[in-house]
Amino acid sequence: MLEFQPLAIDGLARRARLTLRRGVVDTPQFMPVGTYGSVKGVLPAALEQMGAQIILGNTFHLWLRPGLDVIRAFDGLHRFEGWRRPILTDSGGFQVWSLGAMRTIGEEGVHFASPVNGDRLFLTPEVSMQIQTVLDSDIVMQFDECTPYETAGRVTREDEARSSMELSLRWAQRCRAEFERLANPNALFGIVQGGMYEPLREESLARLAEMDLPGYAIGGVSVGEPKDDMRRIVAHTPRRLPAHKPRYLMGVGTPEDLVDGVAHGVDLFDCVMPTRNARNGHLFTRFGDLRLRNARYKADTRPPDESCACHTCAHFSRAYLHHLDRCGEMLAPMLASLHNLHYYLNLMREMRSAIEQQRFATWRAQFEADRSRGV
Amino acid sequence: MLEFQPLAIDGLARRARLTLRRGVVDTPQFMPVGTYGSVKGVLPAALEQMGAQIILGNTFHLWLRPGLDVIRAFDGLHRFEGWRRPILTDSGGFQVWSLGAMRTIGEEGVHFASPVNGDRLFLTPEVSMQIQTVLDSDIVMQFDECTPYETAGRVTREDEARSSMELSLRWAQRCRAEFERLANPNALFGIVQGGMYEPLREESLARLAEMDLPGYAIGGVSVGEPKDDMRRIVAHTPRRLPAHKPRYLMGVGTPEDLVDGVAHGVDLFDCVMPTRNARNGHLFTRFGDLRLRNARYKADTRPPDESCACHTCAHFSRAYLHHLDRCGEMLAPMLASLHNLHYYLNLMREMRSAIEQQRFATWRAQFEADRSRGV
Repeated sequence: MLEFQPLAIDGLARRARLTLRRGVVDTPQFMPVGTYGSVKGVLPAALEQMGAQIILGNTFHLWLRPGLDVIRAFDGLHRFEGWRRPILTDSGGFQVWSLGAMRTIGEEGVHFASPVNGDRLFLTPEVSMQIQTVLDSDIVMQFDECTPYETAGRVTREDEARSSMELSLRWAQRCRAEFERLANPNALFGIVQGGMYEPLREESLARLAEMDLPGYAIGGVSVGEPKDDMRRIVAHTPRRLPAHKPRYLMGVGTPEDLVDGVAHGVDLFDCVMPTRNARNGHLFTRFGDLRLRNARYKADTRPPDESCACHTCAHFSRAYLHHLDRCGEMLAPMLASLHNLHYYLNLMREMRSAIEQQRFATWRAQFEADRSRGV
Repeated sequence: MLEFQPLAIDGLARRARLTLRRGVVDTPQFMPVGTYGSVKGVLPAALEQMGAQIILGNTFHLWLRPGLDVIRAFDGLHRFEGWRRPILTDSGGFQVWSLGAMRTIGEEGVHFASPVNGDRLFLTPEVSMQIQTVLDSDIVMQFDECTPYETAGRVTREDEARSSMELSLRWAQRCRAEFERLANPNALFGIVQGGMYEPLREESLARLAEMDLPGYAIGGVSVGEPKDDMRRIVAHTPRRLPAHKPRYLMGVGTPEDLVDGVAHGVDLFDCVMPTRNARNGHLFTRFGDLRLRNARYKADTRPPDESCACHTCAHFSRAYLHHLDRCGEMLAPMLASLHNLHYYLNLMREMRSAIEQQRFATWRAQFEADRSRGV
């Protein structure tokens, strides 16, 4: 099931309420990534407490470990990982594509060797739907081929991007057929491809729109292309997607990318940056980014972000985090992840509020001024 | 300051209330170890929530990193690490002793090379008191020499243990003089040494008792000796310490060791086992120990310990923990540490309650039956 109720519009930016089987998601919203059924270093209770409404799981990873037999014993991913709110699962398409030389893509699907034990595996649109049905995620993504930015050492040509986009469209049809055959009660999203070519993006989204799926994603961005190309596609594609359905920009991105996406009508985002960067001592703050390892923080008694209400900023200093990081203490990535995820979720909260109050442009100008101020 | 108010006695086991500058500690009590100012993998808020009343910090480690200048900027260790309740710091004696070939012990103190940057350092009773005064811990330990179980490949001889014990006694006098000179407002504990020789233990404790310090520890156990030797010393020494002062058995131990210690009149314990073993997938439970890596838990939907009220057992299964551990997810040591510390703290809680109700022997018999049942 899926309901999408628009609440406010400010320019192209949208404020809406997305209702899924396990609950409500206020959009625009950011989805923390829980690849193996765990948002790295953060307890589900802490995610709930900081206001996360939906998290992501990776079909490819969960298929390999723990495997479907284990997930079935828990009647799906929710009980297995102790998360009661909505979950979106990707299709595995991006992950098998990322295996590079270890996989072969054909019309039927993708042959690859398991990176865990070397087993020969075959992932198809049908298998992806079957796995995601066992996972019982609230949003199921179609199996697609991610069109690479570069092919054979040069920018992917339009004819190459077209044939990849068309394969993803054929796979979308097969996904829907299998999803219906399985009587999956959740919501299936289509994925717009087309590389860096606007005409292909338009063709992809028009043909997906004809399928009347409950939501659409923009795939194949943030895959190594120059920032200007990404911005160009984000400025082009989201606004052309059906207005009454949720739009999800996959794998994006920095705080600035999220703001740009919302400005162009995107409703959902996911990205590993807040947690991955946290593990590398990189904190996002209102006043710019902070590298914990910098010796200037050795005796800095201030919190990472003086404007932040997260658990980390309420209780700990830059000096303490710098020290933990230097000593290799696990608490460093834990506290940094709490902060970064809170920062991302709060950024979305601020944007939702600005859209409701029709002051998104003013808010954005202040956001940009703050971010360039420096910590 | 220190007040020690006995509440109940059952055999040799004691139930008391220990009041320190930052709060009350119900004894018998276990102190989680926060070597570098962090109990590994556990938020201070989680420690409070599970009822930890006092934690330990390591003088040697904190002296090297972050160093005293940083600690001074926070007026001590409490604000630096975000822990409001009492802290006990060790003296650094055990850690420099553990450096082995990298240190030289003399009458004045211990010369050693910093394991962090190779700097030549000199730790003395006076320096240890100065560092612990900057840390401002609620319980300060005297600087001592830990008598090794083995010397030159054979069991340490009585004459060797005597001269080591006597050095620790001279250092205790110097510690007290420096502690008073510094007008440290906290409580200084003496440490009984004497190796595996009861006559030396008696001499050490008699001469420390003459100093009328507010509390005493038993050092030099759990340093590689056979379990029977440790049990012999634990059966011998604690009961001979002044009855109206807290008794602390350093660096001990397994759940069985804690129960044995309490049975012989020990009030305080510390050990890295709950957190270190957690990081190795080893859970302590009422019904025995559980090795998360065992394939038998792959699809086991039960919590680690069905009788346990901790956050981990309330929300997660053996299968999920097994999976997290297998995938190298940080949440595995986090959840295992939460459980193990809760187990240790709850074990102490059960013992306090049993002593209050004069049923410690019955409780102990049930504890032993349960622990051998198997998970």
